Amino acid sequence: MGSFAGHVLPGGMLLFLGLWWGIKFSMFQLTQKNKNRKWQLISRSNQRRLEIFEGFILIVFASVGVVSMQIAGAKVPLYDNTENHWSDMMNLQHCTIFMFFELAGAMTLLVHTTEAVPLALDRLVLGLAFLNKGLLISYHIHGQMMVDVTVHQLLVYIIYVDALILFLEVFHRGNITLELMRSTVSIVQGSWYWQIGFVLCPQGPQWDLSNHSNMMFVVMFFSWHLMFALLFTGLVYCTVSCVHPNKHQWTSPMEMGLLEKIPKSEDEG
Amino acid sequence: MGSFAGHVLPGGMLLFLGLWWGIKFSMFQLTQKNKNRKWQLISRSNQRRLEIFEGFILIVFASVGVVSMQIAGAKVPLYDNTENHWSDMMNLQHCTIFMFFELAGAMTLLVHTTEAVPLALDRLVLGLAFLNKGLLISYHIHGQMMVDVTVHQLLVYIIYVDALILFLEVFHRGNITLELMRSTVSIVQGSWYWQIGFVLCPQGPQWDLSNHSNMMFVVMFFSWHLMFALLFTGLVYCTVSCVHPNKHQWTSPMEMGLLEKIPKSEDEG
Amino acid sequence: MGSFAGHVLPGGMLLFLGLWWGIKFSMFQLTQKNKNRKWQLISRSNQRRLEIFEGFILIVFASVGVVSMQIAGAKVPLYDNTENHWSDMMNLQHCTIFMFFELAGAMTLLVHTTEAVPLALDRLVLGLAFLNKGLLISYHIHGQMMVDVTVHQLLVYIIYVDALILFLEVFHRGNITLELMRSTVSIVQGSWYWQIGFVLCPQGPQWDLSNHSNMMFVVMFFSWHLMFALLFTGLVYCTVSCVHPNKHQWTSPMEMGLLEKIPKSEDEG
Amino acid sequence: MGSFAGHVLPGGMLLFLGLWWGIKFSMFQLTQKNKNRKWQLISRSNQRRLEIFEGFILIVFASVGVVSMQIAGAKVPLYDNTENHWSDMMNLQHCTIFMFFELAGAMTLLVHTTEAVPLALDRLVLGLAFLNKGLLISYHIHGQMMVDVTVHQLLVYIIYVDALILFLEVFHRGNITLELMRSTVSIVQGSWYWQIGFVLCPQGPQWDLSNHSNMMFVVMFFSWHLMFALLFTGLVYCTVSCVHPNKHQWTSPMEMGLLEKIPKSEDEG
Repeated sequence: MGSFAGHVLPGGMLLFLGLWWGIKFSMFQLTQKNKNRKWQLISRSNQRRLEIFEGFILIVFASVGVVSMQIAGAKVPLYDNTENHWSDMMNLQHCTIFMFFELAGAMTLLVHTTEAVPLALDRLVLGLAFLNKGLLISYHIHGQMMVDVTVHQLLVYIIYVDALILFLEVFHRGNITLELMRSTVSIVQGSWYWQIGFVLCPQGPQWDLSNHSNMMFVVMFFSWHLMFALLFTGLVYCTVSCVHPNKHQWTSPMEMGLLEKIPKSEDEG
Repeated sequence: MGSFAGHVLPGGMLLFLGLWWGIKFSMFQLTQKNKNRKWQLISRSNQRRLEIFEGFILIVFASVGVVSMQIAGAKVPLYDNTENHWSDMMNLQHCTIFMFFELAGAMTLLVHTTEAVPLALDRLVLGLAFLNKGLLISYHIHGQMMVDVTVHQLLVYIIYVDALILFLEVFHRGNITLELMRSTVSIVQGSWYWQIGFVLCPQGPQWDLSNHSNMMFVVMFFSWHLMFALLFTGLVYCTVSCVHPNKHQWTSPMEMGLLEKIPKSEDEG
Repeated sequence: MGSFAGHVLPGGMLLFLGLWWGIKFSMFQLTQKNKNRKWQLISRSNQRRLEIFEGFILIVFASVGVVSMQIAGAKVPLYDNTENHWSDMMNLQHCTIFMFFELAGAMTLLVHTTEAVPLALDRLVLGLAFLNKGLLISYHIHGQMMVDVTVHQLLVYIIYVDALILFLEVFHRGNITLELMRSTVSIVQGSWYWQIGFVLCPQGPQWDLSNHSNMMFVVMFFSWHLMFALLFTGLVYCTVSCVHPNKHQWTSPMEMGLLEKIPKSEDEG
Repeated sequence: MGSFAGHVLPGGMLLFLGLWWGIKFSMFQLTQKNKNRKWQLISRSNQRRLEIFEGFILIVFASVGVVSMQIAGAKVPLYDNTENHWSDMMNLQHCTIFMFFELAGAMTLLVHTTEAVPLALDRLVLGLAFLNKGLLISYHIHGQMMVDVTVHQLLVYIIYVDALILFLEVFHRGNITLELMRSTVSIVQGSWYWQIGFVLCPQGPQWDLSNHSNMMFVVMFFSWHLMFALLFTGLVYCTVSCVHPNKHQWTSPMEMGLLEKIPKSEDEG
């Protein structure tokens, strides 16, 4: 890993995606609730256009990643016959990660432009892309120093959580709580990439990567990222609610869960 | 960790919360079953008042925790540039844990005073608070002695179970079995904190923290805590049932589960 | 652990329970399917009597276990103040395991004799008893030899699977596939106890407990136990079906699963 | 393990099964959607014939495996009393693995020829066969070299994923996304067997099995296998769709998931 830019770039992409998902799903949710009315924030055809746009973004981001890896110096991997091993794995691994997201973007396009593909496949392939990313990164961190291992371990955890949420969405598509969680987790992932960049390649003096206190600080900082991402997603949801034209519509309680036993709007008075 | 008071304080809070949840959900369940009758133990507006009160309790408890950490000597963490590490992590970590519960309390208030927030979010954020607590404590226990590691490991397990139950409640809100389990698990957590206090800071002679028999005793004691918490929750449920005014109402069998194939009240005679 | 009888006793109990569950649930399932007919194999009141009988069996088995532990020499544990550790943990741990099953038996009685307790609680407490058993045994096996560790690890796995099936039954009560799986897994558990007895305390020459081939044999033997338990449960189900008086009734396909898309009995011809 | 043929043989079987499942479930899915029409690609009786044929294939494959193990030199295992250990475990273990698949094939036959067995059991026993395979292989890899351990670890992961999908299918039978995932995962498993054969027994110079770069290459290659298997399954599904006679029928969106909130076919215009 090492380079500062190599952590800021994917971090920025994930921050953008997290923000995009937060706004998109908030808008869909608010549109949803005014279902049987004529007037809606986003028509279904506009919803589909947003989904197609998201597919393009994923492909563009993944392509930028692949190309930047080439510029950063990925040669075609050569099997070194004299020494019997493969050289220059890192860049090639990162390309593999980005190519899976390219596939996810292509699947999103396919799902929302044609009708022949099961709707759930965009979530599934995106989930696989995150799972694959977690798997590859988890094999990166053999034999590094304690703080280095810890920051990447936490990164792998949050990547797996993202994959898990996407797999749950395969079965519970359109569940607003899962969708906002995905937005939050992606923001944490993005901001954590930046954090890793600052920890491993600081502008000032180097961190002592084998110090136990530093490791504990890093874990604590991770939970701060989580907290701020939660608050930020809440803020995004509220902002979208406020700019929504017919505000008095969204005051009915949102429901979720399979058995909801206390309908609150019954005998309030 | 170390100090006796530092384990008794959160333990007491969790014991109170566990007891509170046991009583609250028993009362809600009994109210539930007399749904289509006029006369009810708790009206819906009183239910909401209880929920709002619970939000306040969470915030007060978390604030007491944060403040007591300050008194116990948390200075503002200073990055020690000469030695390149962070000092005084413990207190700051505990503050972080409490701040997440503060957030959970605020979310509970928000969910039950306004209508704009999905109902499931109070469970979700409380579950995240427990998950975050488990994560932070699990990084505490590097390099301690065997019995010390074991008691904290068991604490982390039971905290994760609490988080898991809360995440299940996000999808199955109002399920009485899950709610009573949450009450039980919180009581185990609270009493286990006290147990840790007595093991690590005993009044009498010190324990031999590296002895294998002591470790096995501690594990067995944990299962006793679980057993007594189960019996205690059962007792709370029965007590609430007995003081309930129209007792002959609650004799119909409670159902749970998605497919219930043996309705017992059919051909009994 | 050590003694041969100490493994044969719980093994025999679990074999009995597995067989009992296999027969009981097969009979319930066959009764189920003739729902809207007068003539039934077991009336509902007889079903309840069987459940109450099962509660008694559990209590008797657990009491036998506790008493035999006393006879085997459990003294009241004394905290050895001079050496600062607890002595004679093993017998006390086994008593704890049995006491949890006593609780499970009492809960089964309570659920099926009164109407005040949620029906799901018998499964839940029995599942907790297995979970607790697995937890305690998993702390037994520190520092033993390789084959000894492996046999107990496999025992812990199968105990956790039993607990998992019971927790799934809390939500999917009456699902015949889960119930037959529980019967199978309990039979594997019981026969595996006997296997452990023969491996650790053989009549003939001692096994070499640190040999790698022996460890691999033991794992393979475990999968044979699983296979024979599957075949045995199948045999039990078929036998019960055959002695069932109105055989032509049970030829309709049994369904399970939440979405069953290929109803087979439609256009067969 | 060692021999090249010993990896190519099961790999080829799994590739065939993966392809077979991809084609079969695509055809079933397309037939499904024209439910209320007379004209269908496969009648129900033909579907059943395909299922019975699949049971035969499983039995034949497993028998070929068992027999080839005998030819490869499996003697009846003899407990070596002088040295107190079992000899020649490998072949016997592989026989055990194949025998479980034989059982799964027999169960498939039983489920689809008679009506007395719960429909879900074919998935369940096949899932158990994969679980058992993963368990046995995971005990193979003690004390091998780094690359050897990694390739078998990844094999065990993908085998467990196969088992997990089959267990999910027990509860969600007929879900096309799960079925296509099973096809994909089986193809990955099969092609990964071939990969292992080429890595451990190369035609050219030997790999350096303790080299860290080689290990990282192997992990990356695994994710390429996954990617190509995904694309291949997609290709199979599209091909089956294209040769399907009444193409205009399958243009309605496929649904999956328990709550599907955005029905796309509503107000497209």
